Amino acid sequence: MKTQVAIIGAGPSGLLLGQLLSRQGIDNVILERKSGEYVLSRIRAGVLEQGMVDLLREAGVDRRMDEEGEVHDGVELALDNRRVRVDLAGLTGGKTVMVYGQTEVTRDLMEAREAAGGTTLYEADNVQPHDLETDHPYVTFEKDGETHRLECDYVAGCDGFHGVSRQSIPEGRIKEFEKVYPFGWLGLLADTPPVAEELIYARHERGFALCSMRSSTRSRYYLQVGLDEKVEDWSDERFWEELKRRIPDEVAETLVTGPSIEKSIAPLRSFVVEPMQYGRLFLVGDAAHIVPPTGAKGLNLAASDVNTLYRLMVKVYQEGRTDLIPSYSATCLKRIWKAERFSWWMTSMLHKFSEEEDFATRMQQAELDYVTSSEAGLTTIAENYVGLPYESLE
Amino acid sequence: MKTQVAIIGAGPSGLLLGQLLSRQGIDNVILERKSGEYVLSRIRAGVLEQGMVDLLREAGVDRRMDEEGEVHDGVELALDNRRVRVDLAGLTGGKTVMVYGQTEVTRDLMEAREAAGGTTLYEADNVQPHDLETDHPYVTFEKDGETHRLECDYVAGCDGFHGVSRQSIPEGRIKEFEKVYPFGWLGLLADTPPVAEELIYARHERGFALCSMRSSTRSRYYLQVGLDEKVEDWSDERFWEELKRRIPDEVAETLVTGPSIEKSIAPLRSFVVEPMQYGRLFLVGDAAHIVPPTGAKGLNLAASDVNTLYRLMVKVYQEGRTDLIPSYSATCLKRIWKAERFSWWMTSMLHKFSEEEDFATRMQQAELDYVTSSEAGLTTIAENYVGLPYESLE
Repeated sequence: MKTQVAIIGAGPSGLLLGQLLSRQGIDNVILERKSGEYVLSRIRAGVLEQGMVDLLREAGVDRRMDEEGEVHDGVELALDNRRVRVDLAGLTGGKTVMVYGQTEVTRDLMEAREAAGGTTLYEADNVQPHDLETDHPYVTFEKDGETHRLECDYVAGCDGFHGVSRQSIPEGRIKEFEKVYPFGWLGLLADTPPVAEELIYARHERGFALCSMRSSTRSRYYLQVGLDEKVEDWSDERFWEELKRRIPDEVAETLVTGPSIEKSIAPLRSFVVEPMQYGRLFLVGDAAHIVPPTGAKGLNLAASDVNTLYRLMVKVYQEGRTDLIPSYSATCLKRIWKAERFSWWMTSMLHKFSEEEDFATRMQQAELDYVTSSEAGLTTIAENYVGLPYESLE
Repeated sequence: MKTQVAIIGAGPSGLLLGQLLSRQGIDNVILERKSGEYVLSRIRAGVLEQGMVDLLREAGVDRRMDEEGEVHDGVELALDNRRVRVDLAGLTGGKTVMVYGQTEVTRDLMEAREAAGGTTLYEADNVQPHDLETDHPYVTFEKDGETHRLECDYVAGCDGFHGVSRQSIPEGRIKEFEKVYPFGWLGLLADTPPVAEELIYARHERGFALCSMRSSTRSRYYLQVGLDEKVEDWSDERFWEELKRRIPDEVAETLVTGPSIEKSIAPLRSFVVEPMQYGRLFLVGDAAHIVPPTGAKGLNLAASDVNTLYRLMVKVYQEGRTDLIPSYSATCLKRIWKAERFSWWMTSMLHKFSEEEDFATRMQQAELDYVTSSEAGLTTIAENYVGLPYESLE
């Protein structure tokens, strides 16, 4: 088997990259360890930056997003009972975000790929890239009991934090930066109308809470919980009660509760590897970096990596610009570190870190007091939340 | 002896408070442990916010400041060889700062007090306030071998971090918040022209440096140094060499060096007590709070406390508004915590904390990259640097 770009991972970044490349006539094959159904069952993010929305349009998968997605021009910060709106559009000269679930994006991309006749090999076991430092890399995998070999020019590692791509880079060739937070997020998905039209990021004495949504009939809520908490200790009832305590009273009064569709606890982590490439392997999205979810940057950062790699491949195949290849990592990382900073800052500012009223706690309160009382401060939230500009390659 | 307001400490805050009160006909006596000459020999800050400049005008001590002080409408950040100007005036709708040394402010206030016939008792030993929770507090002190008693209505504690005022508050009645930084500042004063017209805050691999000035012929430079460093190990020559390494090459080339007039190492600390009052004692400035000097907030915060206490006393004596007395601390602290945040943030962003290229170091770099590339980010520096608005009492 032979292709130009071998893509490892059929999540939204692999699929988006594949679709964009295909539309430019660049041949690609996607290898995915799991089944398509499994990929679609993962509940993930739901806030898309304008840059990602534009990229989805460029990939030709905007029809359903435009019909069902919701444009949000503001988000809310709730500090105990005080509510502060961050006027995203007003503070950024009209920029907005799109609320449209990652699951829906993935489904749209899958369908588009199928319609275009692109190859996605699901349930490919033991995927392994080889000879990445040569001009002729290849990827081996097993499927239906047989071992296959996929020859390619380049490998795109879109297989997430635990995937094989980053692990294929020899030790000493990349450096890891990491911060693990002393808490997790307990998420609950329910077919109930969202408690408010806009997302609410709530800082409370009892811990952070987030009121989010996937659509006008599907809500997603999160609670900051200790790392020792277990999902089975959180009945739906307990979740709703705790949520009500952490959000402003007037919001809690209008909360519609209902049975959960999904409930899970995720740890919070900041993680980056440098560089994001090794020979002919390019790491994309979670394979190279993780952000804590405060600020909704994970999927969007993956999209901006896709944007960089896509434009790089177009230059390589259409203009022969292989000289640009070494600049992939630095171009991506410029934007990634800023988004890492924003995610770390939002996380630091809105979560409860200690039982003590210490200096750090006061800095957190002072930061919120300042930021919410200053147009410049609110703008630093708004412009990062809608997404900083994409970096160009040269 | 009897007065209305007993002021402990004849530094700039005690003197400014005394002058403002005297002009409103509120009688006051200042007690100072040291001599006037000693007070004038202390080398301190030199950047005055507009609010403090206005307050000095209100106190009638603006003549020499207007003649000799320099209005600065920008400061510079230097990141290795990259220079970014923070256009204070442009980003804040025209606000500026005044470069005029604390020593000069103190001298002007001393002269004004003498001209007005105000009482300052220098070399007053064992100053001790008493009966602060009663309606009849008093302050005892020794002078020329005799013990004196100063009856008063209120006591203003303007005697700095190590003064007796805060120490007179019983344990358990105030709470302390503190952060000590793992480095100090080595300062050098020289009669050389400043290397640049505006202050330069330099972040460098080898540590922070600040190029500051007191006038067009007197410079003040600082270097971040380890806590174990000793002044005697720093010859002038070594200081200048190290400074040149940390500032941009093109700046270093124009540096005029010369013999130091003063050289000393100060530790960096963030410190706040809550509340800032106890009965009829009000803490003012360093007696209640310390900021690290990055951001030039120390003297300015003392001035904003003076402003609050001055206006409170005027309301008390002219309108009988003793009901406002309990609000002194909260009014001051609102602004203090924001300035503490700014000073902590500037310190965190510009100093070298660790030898390691770790996540925290990258966050620091990303913060600088973001802030210096965003108008909103630069505005958050500018509006804090020129000083947030004074809080009013009600």
